[in-house]
Amino acid sequence: MSIINVSLSRRLRTTPFETRVFEHGVKAFTIYNKMTLPTVFESAEADYQHLCEHVQLWDVACERQVQIKGPDALALVELITPRDISKCAVNQCMYAPLVDEFGGIINDPIIVRVAENTYWLSIADSDVVLWVKGIAFGRKLNVDISEPDVSPLGVQGPKAEDLMVDILGEQVRDIGFFKCIEVNLAGANMLMARSGWSGQGGFEIYLNDSAKGLKLWDEIWAAGEKYNIRAGCPNSIERLETGLLSFGNDMTYANNPFECGLDRFFKLGKIAEYMSRQALDKIARDGVQRKMVKLKISADAQGNRAPAVRETWPITTEGGDAIGIVTSLAYSPRFDATLAFAFIDVEHIQTDATVTIVCGEKMFDAKICDDKWQ
Amino acid sequence: MSIINVSLSRRLRTTPFETRVFEHGVKAFTIYNKMTLPTVFESAEADYQHLCEHVQLWDVACERQVQIKGPDALALVELITPRDISKCAVNQCMYAPLVDEFGGIINDPIIVRVAENTYWLSIADSDVVLWVKGIAFGRKLNVDISEPDVSPLGVQGPKAEDLMVDILGEQVRDIGFFKCIEVNLAGANMLMARSGWSGQGGFEIYLNDSAKGLKLWDEIWAAGEKYNIRAGCPNSIERLETGLLSFGNDMTYANNPFECGLDRFFKLGKIAEYMSRQALDKIARDGVQRKMVKLKISADAQGNRAPAVRETWPITTEGGDAIGIVTSLAYSPRFDATLAFAFIDVEHIQTDATVTIVCGEKMFDAKICDDKWQ
Repeated sequence: MSIINVSLSRRLRTTPFETRVFEHGVKAFTIYNKMTLPTVFESAEADYQHLCEHVQLWDVACERQVQIKGPDALALVELITPRDISKCAVNQCMYAPLVDEFGGIINDPIIVRVAENTYWLSIADSDVVLWVKGIAFGRKLNVDISEPDVSPLGVQGPKAEDLMVDILGEQVRDIGFFKCIEVNLAGANMLMARSGWSGQGGFEIYLNDSAKGLKLWDEIWAAGEKYNIRAGCPNSIERLETGLLSFGNDMTYANNPFECGLDRFFKLGKIAEYMSRQALDKIARDGVQRKMVKLKISADAQGNRAPAVRETWPITTEGGDAIGIVTSLAYSPRFDATLAFAFIDVEHIQTDATVTIVCGEKMFDAKICDDKWQ
Repeated sequence: MSIINVSLSRRLRTTPFETRVFEHGVKAFTIYNKMTLPTVFESAEADYQHLCEHVQLWDVACERQVQIKGPDALALVELITPRDISKCAVNQCMYAPLVDEFGGIINDPIIVRVAENTYWLSIADSDVVLWVKGIAFGRKLNVDISEPDVSPLGVQGPKAEDLMVDILGEQVRDIGFFKCIEVNLAGANMLMARSGWSGQGGFEIYLNDSAKGLKLWDEIWAAGEKYNIRAGCPNSIERLETGLLSFGNDMTYANNPFECGLDRFFKLGKIAEYMSRQALDKIARDGVQRKMVKLKISADAQGNRAPAVRETWPITTEGGDAIGIVTSLAYSPRFDATLAFAFIDVEHIQTDATVTIVCGEKMFDAKICDDKWQ
């Protein structure tokens, strides 16, 4: 059982691109910020192969923007992340874990500074707007918080740049990683960033008028036919290979940034006030009990591969002691192995150590890898 | 297109009863607080008929509890709702809209006072835990906020009381509406309230240990066989007939309690501080522009009935002026009519007035009803 039927209703919000997503034969979705996010078109492996060679259009409207605007906007954004956001220029993006006063990760958005006093938190799957509204109310901050009509469309894959150059000109080649420019598409001005949820390169276009969604899709599609464009989506195989964590799958409110390795995105002790300061200082001092690692899981004696994760799979020593959990996995054709993200107790983490993955009745051997899956 | 395929993942949390839900032939779910909530077993109409005559077990684990505990628990709960919660005794439940400082509805939970300084907000579909965590942080309140391992199981239908008497004895008959008692089920003590998301009577059992979910289900099921028990779920036909609003479908953050008729659950001006005081005073003074009404929608000349709502359906005057939206609808066999909830501009609200519902290419006549669908 890996797919269920879900009834549509107003609570499951439509996206501006949904019509095209259905037309291009989407086979399944996940629900993300109460919106549909495609998970598979042809098959995970076929989608992956195409993504790594060509260019795809991704309906990632579910990456909603939490807009924080006003005189206290920077103070509020600084408060909710240990990352130093004062360094973020207008039209720059920064990946930043949001961390509460207990050190728990609330979300891991890309923060886009869209104007002097306006930030978008381009969020993963949790209701950040309610959290920041609560904090702003409690702190009496002078900010306006909203979810604007902004729906990202991803253009991902190695041919994404050539495609967008055809549409927008050579200026596209000069866009730095995690930088935005304003572009005119579908007859309107909107932001486009060099970013996206894959390691294959590409752009995210922040459509700012839902009514223009199909026009935007069609405009890029038409120019993309010569590049063998297809409808696609964040791909589990590609994200494992590239090492992209998924909030809610790999880490939850119960995890802190150190155990997930997200501390590489900030330096403790920035000047601005941040609510996680004391909690993170303490964790940095005391150390963590578990850490996220990469695993390669072997097939069993019958050649079966570890099944997809529904909740988490327990990890034990070869002797049977519980030492961790697998949070995500996917079979990678490139590595000819099942790749997995897992939390393991630090005293058991050693590259090349063998551990056991318990998938219900079945058990699989796995090896702890380095960051490059070696 | 009324059903989509959704991929399972850790982000779509399992419920303690899910195994039985699948075994009993669930046909579709909705996603609610990142958990599965069944929407149909046999068919909406067959499920409805059975619910109105017999007794059903409902997996409503998705009604998560936001637990607020500590010296400032009451102050925080009072702050987020205009309803006077100081009157809520231990083991009592109160339905209370949560309203922000702008008058917008954030959720409409049942608040259960489970101990002197401990409240559960048994929530509808929005991430209230983040909002109250934000407020508590900003206000430096002395509370502990968590989502405990508590998953309601509904026992709903006219035979629910006889069934629970068979299991727990005559004490069950004395449980008042929206009152709880502690019961021993599945070998553990847990709360049971006379409540539930139907007008057919019944109980909600607050299972407090997921590991005992199947045992609890099986224990009630075995005793329920003589009452023709079935697996069921909140039913759209029954909820329309009974007049139960659904947060996220019928009202959103953009609505205030007055326009939804939820002001009947509170009296403005309670003594305790509440964040919506000024906003609600102003709305009460100025009046609202639209109000929720009940509509009966007629079949068209070909006998077609209005299709299910995906987002909302526009409402116009017979002359074509936009005057509102339909938020929910269902065909009721009892009334032999399509019942609907709708927002209509107040100047157009008059019982028996005829309006037009625009469902894509098709148009339907509808009549504004009184509260009893007359």
